Amino acid sequence: MINFNVILFDNFEVLDVFGPVEVIGKLPKHYAIKYFSQNGGLVISRQDTRIATLSFSKISHGGVSLIPGGMGTRTLVNDVQFINDIKDIAENSDYVLCVCTGSALLAKTGLLDNRNATTNKMAFNWVKSNGINVKWDKNARWVVDGKYYTSAGVSAGIDMALGYVADVHGLDMAIEIANYIEYDWNRNKKDDKFCHLVE
Amino acid sequence: MINFNVILFDNFEVLDVFGPVEVIGKLPKHYAIKYFSQNGGLVISRQDTRIATLSFSKISHGGVSLIPGGMGTRTLVNDVQFINDIKDIAENSDYVLCVCTGSALLAKTGLLDNRNATTNKMAFNWVKSNGINVKWDKNARWVVDGKYYTSAGVSAGIDMALGYVADVHGLDMAIEIANYIEYDWNRNKKDDKFCHLVE
Repeated sequence: MINFNVILFDNFEVLDVFGPVEVIGKLPKHYAIKYFSQNGGLVISRQDTRIATLSFSKISHGGVSLIPGGMGTRTLVNDVQFINDIKDIAENSDYVLCVCTGSALLAKTGLLDNRNATTNKMAFNWVKSNGINVKWDKNARWVVDGKYYTSAGVSAGIDMALGYVADVHGLDMAIEIANYIEYDWNRNKKDDKFCHLVE
Repeated sequence: MINFNVILFDNFEVLDVFGPVEVIGKLPKHYAIKYFSQNGGLVISRQDTRIATLSFSKISHGGVSLIPGGMGTRTLVNDVQFINDIKDIAENSDYVLCVCTGSALLAKTGLLDNRNATTNKMAFNWVKSNGINVKWDKNARWVVDGKYYTSAGVSAGIDMALGYVADVHGLDMAIEIANYIEYDWNRNKKDDKFCHLVE
């Protein structure tokens, strides 16, 4: 079993998390989904959802880590201990999946330096300011660079998670899951049509 | 403020809940989102998410209720007390939104009798057996009949929630939210293209 470690913090965005979790949850023989926050206990989403978590200290090495976005990232990029924790978690994960402004947290660790990545275009300049050495792609739906996956805003996390499944478990499996969850998968990772809404 | 009451139970499907919650969460001046289960406390999703809830007894009259699907519905349709509770909640809500097999729970109360509704086509015959007097639509992405909204599987809940926003708050608002969450809204509620995958 591969651990799928969901990294939570107050004011995270629910669909950033539960889009990818829905996708990975369709592979129950492969993944054990676990929920973590810095100190454990209940974490509250932007939508007032209270979710029980274990503390970061309980995360095992290896596996996949999911880092969502949300308004909580705006203060956390300046929380040195939190960013150090994210760096430690990312370095010890086999894959890291960032949705939306979650990439700002990963960028702040320096681990994305000189790598290709993307994020929510509506928050593009803010995210960029947290990773000036990252090669940010303004048009991508999601980007893969080594073990790091980063996606555009919110629903793009579902497309990226299906892309991850295609890369690791094969395209047929990704299509099967997309059909099962009745999701119209945007398979072209180079084109985030929503980026054209932002100037 | 309108209460948006999310009805949870063990083995619910996360995207059935957090797709619509993401949509409604973009109207924070209009809706207070609250999470309920029969006895309150932590509810565990099919994906091992533990969510804190209040008990059904704390639900105020009025507002909107969201009933998700998931494997948990398979046993709950035969739980007389639970179905009575759902009937009471639905009767006292201004709108009821059911995603996927959540419609089986509502159908079992009898409140959908002689009304139009839809559900997940992969579970169509099972859902139908729980509401033989419902006019089930085999092709719809979502159906509106009076105060009752019912959708096809999983991601269709996002389309339906956007449809609800369009009906109540106007089409422009629904489009704005779809763009904000970068979701490719299927606006044609009569056509669930995924239903063609099932014979």
